[in-house]
Amino acid sequence: MSSQLRNDLEDAANRMRISSIEMTCASKSGHPTSSTSAAEIMATLFFHEMRYDIAEPKSASADRFVLSKGHACPILYAAWEEAGLLSHKDVLSLRKIDSDIEGHPTPRLNFIDVATGSLGQGLGAAAGMAYVGKYIDKASYRVYCLLGDGESAEGSVWEAAAFASIYKLDNLVAIVDVNRLGQSQQTSLGHDMDTYKARFAAFGFNAIVVDGHNIDELLAAYETARNTKDKPTAILAKTLKGKGIDNVENLDNWHGKPVPAETIESIRKRLHGSEKGKLVARKPVDDAPKIDLNVGNIRMARPNYALGDKVATRAAYGTALAKLGDASPRVIGLDGDTKNSTFSDKLLKAHPEQFIECFIAEQNLVGVAVGAQCRDRTIPFTSTFAAFFTRATDQIRMAAVSFANLKCVGSHVGVSIGEDGPSQMALEDLAIFRAIPNSTVFYPTDAVSAERATELAANTKGIVFIRTSRPALPVLYENDEPFAIGKAKVLRKSDNDSVVLIGAGVTTYEALKAAEKLETEGIHATVIDPFTIKPLDSATIAEYAKKAGGKVLTVEDHYPAGGIGEAVSAALADLPIRVRSLCVRDVPRSGPPDDLVDKYGISARHIIDAVKNFV
Amino acid sequence: MSSQLRNDLEDAANRMRISSIEMTCASKSGHPTSSTSAAEIMATLFFHEMRYDIAEPKSASADRFVLSKGHACPILYAAWEEAGLLSHKDVLSLRKIDSDIEGHPTPRLNFIDVATGSLGQGLGAAAGMAYVGKYIDKASYRVYCLLGDGESAEGSVWEAAAFASIYKLDNLVAIVDVNRLGQSQQTSLGHDMDTYKARFAAFGFNAIVVDGHNIDELLAAYETARNTKDKPTAILAKTLKGKGIDNVENLDNWHGKPVPAETIESIRKRLHGSEKGKLVARKPVDDAPKIDLNVGNIRMARPNYALGDKVATRAAYGTALAKLGDASPRVIGLDGDTKNSTFSDKLLKAHPEQFIECFIAEQNLVGVAVGAQCRDRTIPFTSTFAAFFTRATDQIRMAAVSFANLKCVGSHVGVSIGEDGPSQMALEDLAIFRAIPNSTVFYPTDAVSAERATELAANTKGIVFIRTSRPALPVLYENDEPFAIGKAKVLRKSDNDSVVLIGAGVTTYEALKAAEKLETEGIHATVIDPFTIKPLDSATIAEYAKKAGGKVLTVEDHYPAGGIGEAVSAALADLPIRVRSLCVRDVPRSGPPDDLVDKYGISARHIIDAVKNFV
Repeated sequence: MSSQLRNDLEDAANRMRISSIEMTCASKSGHPTSSTSAAEIMATLFFHEMRYDIAEPKSASADRFVLSKGHACPILYAAWEEAGLLSHKDVLSLRKIDSDIEGHPTPRLNFIDVATGSLGQGLGAAAGMAYVGKYIDKASYRVYCLLGDGESAEGSVWEAAAFASIYKLDNLVAIVDVNRLGQSQQTSLGHDMDTYKARFAAFGFNAIVVDGHNIDELLAAYETARNTKDKPTAILAKTLKGKGIDNVENLDNWHGKPVPAETIESIRKRLHGSEKGKLVARKPVDDAPKIDLNVGNIRMARPNYALGDKVATRAAYGTALAKLGDASPRVIGLDGDTKNSTFSDKLLKAHPEQFIECFIAEQNLVGVAVGAQCRDRTIPFTSTFAAFFTRATDQIRMAAVSFANLKCVGSHVGVSIGEDGPSQMALEDLAIFRAIPNSTVFYPTDAVSAERATELAANTKGIVFIRTSRPALPVLYENDEPFAIGKAKVLRKSDNDSVVLIGAGVTTYEALKAAEKLETEGIHATVIDPFTIKPLDSATIAEYAKKAGGKVLTVEDHYPAGGIGEAVSAALADLPIRVRSLCVRDVPRSGPPDDLVDKYGISARHIIDAVKNFV
Repeated sequence: MSSQLRNDLEDAANRMRISSIEMTCASKSGHPTSSTSAAEIMATLFFHEMRYDIAEPKSASADRFVLSKGHACPILYAAWEEAGLLSHKDVLSLRKIDSDIEGHPTPRLNFIDVATGSLGQGLGAAAGMAYVGKYIDKASYRVYCLLGDGESAEGSVWEAAAFASIYKLDNLVAIVDVNRLGQSQQTSLGHDMDTYKARFAAFGFNAIVVDGHNIDELLAAYETARNTKDKPTAILAKTLKGKGIDNVENLDNWHGKPVPAETIESIRKRLHGSEKGKLVARKPVDDAPKIDLNVGNIRMARPNYALGDKVATRAAYGTALAKLGDASPRVIGLDGDTKNSTFSDKLLKAHPEQFIECFIAEQNLVGVAVGAQCRDRTIPFTSTFAAFFTRATDQIRMAAVSFANLKCVGSHVGVSIGEDGPSQMALEDLAIFRAIPNSTVFYPTDAVSAERATELAANTKGIVFIRTSRPALPVLYENDEPFAIGKAKVLRKSDNDSVVLIGAGVTTYEALKAAEKLETEGIHATVIDPFTIKPLDSATIAEYAKKAGGKVLTVEDHYPAGGIGEAVSAALADLPIRVRSLCVRDVPRSGPPDDLVDKYGISARHIIDAVKNFV
């Protein structure tokens, strides 16, 4: 390479160092040392390797960049400043309440695809983008992910690495900024570059060790990556934390702290005099297909059941997903080796190219989906046992910070799964998904409503959870019954009801059985199926509760915290309505489904007792 | 080895195969094929390698065995039957509602340390046991963990592997039953034994490939493991799923299904005629120290603050933890490279031998702690940012199924952390920890109550969460103020209160400020600090609510679902008390703490407005 290019890139790196220091001095907090270790990596990526256009940083065809070590965002902001997208005034607003230049990156900025800051999550998202680029968009854009060394201790990194090699994602480059120092001490591997290399190689990467401050070595590594087929590349960059900052470089106790502003001076002295703005990134190759996800207008063939047919909602989900796959080539399914239990395999059979097997790695299942939905390329439906979505709680939490359009469908909920026992029973999933801001939570009772929930999920932007059940139970609704988010169904009512029963899934059937039995004893009950637990149709519930003497009894196959009982109690807390709740209150055990539903207090018998006690 | 021993072990393996098939035929469900692939592994472990006594399977000095692939429990039950601990009648009760022989193992059985069945969790727990064995008990017991190949896709396995090599756990042996087939298809690596070997070697293990059905190779590998110093050993056992079962062995579509009972006959024909009961395990070396954790009687020096001192509850936690470390050598601290933020480093400084750095791997942080508390060897306090405990939600869920004595202390909660932004803010942690059955959830407001919460946590068996806060705020309680689980503190009251305000942590101060201001306008408010959110002191809240006209306003730095508002609403739902709630309702952003507390609607100003609207 020419010494001019080297000088230009070194100057870009050092200007970005200076800006990183300036912005963290201005905000009096932040991570300049984690930024400066990556200055050459970022300069070479942004001003020689990557193809993008600041007029549209997130165009469909542009290369993607994911900053997995999100706390190093000053260097990212400095790169976009160097590229001309941000002004120096912009970056000096770092961490201010009215600025989108936040303490960790979020997609409030037009150049961020996924929020980072919870470590170890970037590579999964990047792998999702690369999968879509290679197999769905079939486009030439590439995906670059910068990781920290400390975060490579997160298992999610290795789930993503395995995924990238299984699918031969040669359009993916992971760069690890091995700066040796974590937050509170040296990382476990320090500068043991051989071990990093061995780990990535064992996980199927073309692994290259470089001096991360050497422009020539970095450019050569990117070139090797571009020329490597059928394998992702990992560039293990040996760096120094705080590189270039006098009396800070490579020293402990400087994590997450501004450094003295005067350290800028000696960095400035190292500039060769190249002009800012001279290096301009190559433009993207405009070969990603133009698509419209058509969210809001994706229509599937209508359900096709007879009333009373016994169909599990998980099976109905699979049927609906396959039909949505017919309707849109951008509806995709992802599963974690449970596809024959969640019935996502119905999509695989109908449209194999719209299905991604993610194997037993639920964090990465969600991470890949978050990546796949970026730039509106796909509508990803992820599925596994609902209990195993708890494995990805942090990824789901971060998906909310990413404002992601993510669908999660969890099967095998509650004690009604039966003999497999408590490890397989989701009993806290409603709490977790209800807690996600702006989420939608469906809990369909029968096959017709499960199909409609799936269709509505595809047509609703944001994080959606559908809670499906294992047992095959009777179809309750006509095929043309209309369903809407936030609209409950009143399944049973009379003019002299004295209590409202609210069930969902298996407990709806228990409530109906109880109501039937109670009627023979002269006690009349309204039965409501809420359909969505969030938003909850509190207006309908309150209306019928008032008619029924202000008494509501909820019944759910879930623990008390954050479930239907608490949702209803909170929704009605300011009204003169009394709410009581039946739910699972202890760690369950193995046994036949009906026996467990009864043992844990949510069967018709318990509902009848509770009603008699209440009215 | 003698051919007699080989025959004896082969017969034990085949008897265990037969029993596994019989019990799953009896239960009409379960995983015989995942069991028979491991028959020789289990026979050699249980009847040649491991040291235990069926009179006390979980004695302090006995070797530990963790079945990470929990669905293969029929072979484990068969091993304990072969050893004479269980009768054949016992194992035939598999999956029945009145039997502890559950569909996946739980510590309801006297030979199970940790529940498994959510895949990829066994090795972390086993590493925790091995750490305690090597560094705390300094005893000669060894730890064996059997994993499936499918589950080795879980990142938690690699977090645990890294941990085991960092701490040179040469008393730990991981055995991977590489039977090639997952639930729904072949695993991504199939029988690629070289890649398994390369991965474990890169993660610091002595990695050995064997034929998992060959007795000699297995015994040789265990011996090599015993003779390997400063490294854990991984035995990669190439096996066939359904091994030994005619027309099932090595075939797809047999996961989790009983096989025809008549397949037993051809296995029976392979028996050499060795007698059951001939092989007896070696007895443990009785060198683990006799200890009494003294739970209920661990006393720390009392807090030492002046009223009004500004101290963060996270700092008070660290102080208390160090004092508990003085009181008991078995109180240990574990952290994920955040010890200088959570202040668990105070224990490290006072008692380095009672602290385990787990690096940035929160699933393993919890997994190691769950292993460390087994057999009442330690009382583990884990700490990280509360947001990052979401990474370990599944491990915490499974800890409940393990009835584990686990303490989780999460710092940096809510918008009041400020500039670092939403990725670092825990706003769903109360929902998650409240959902854990039988958990205790502390949310101390000041330093004195935070210290007492820590002391109470050490003295309370089960899963305990302490929510600590980042900001340094005034000490509210006298040093000798008594605190108890489920007992709220009434911080402010008068005879003419018209509303009860409930805050916790930072919002307690906002509530006090609001009450003070409201008083100047003639509106009087009770202010309650609940101390524990679970159990909630609903009696005290209801008592004061009645006095205050039946109106309660909760204020919390948490999302609505599963938080204080819902907890209070549900607790009072059957009473004529109205509850309104202020909480964070959207994805927050970066900014100064006080500005964010105000922007997201939980500051004194918002409380005042809400009260005026309410009373």
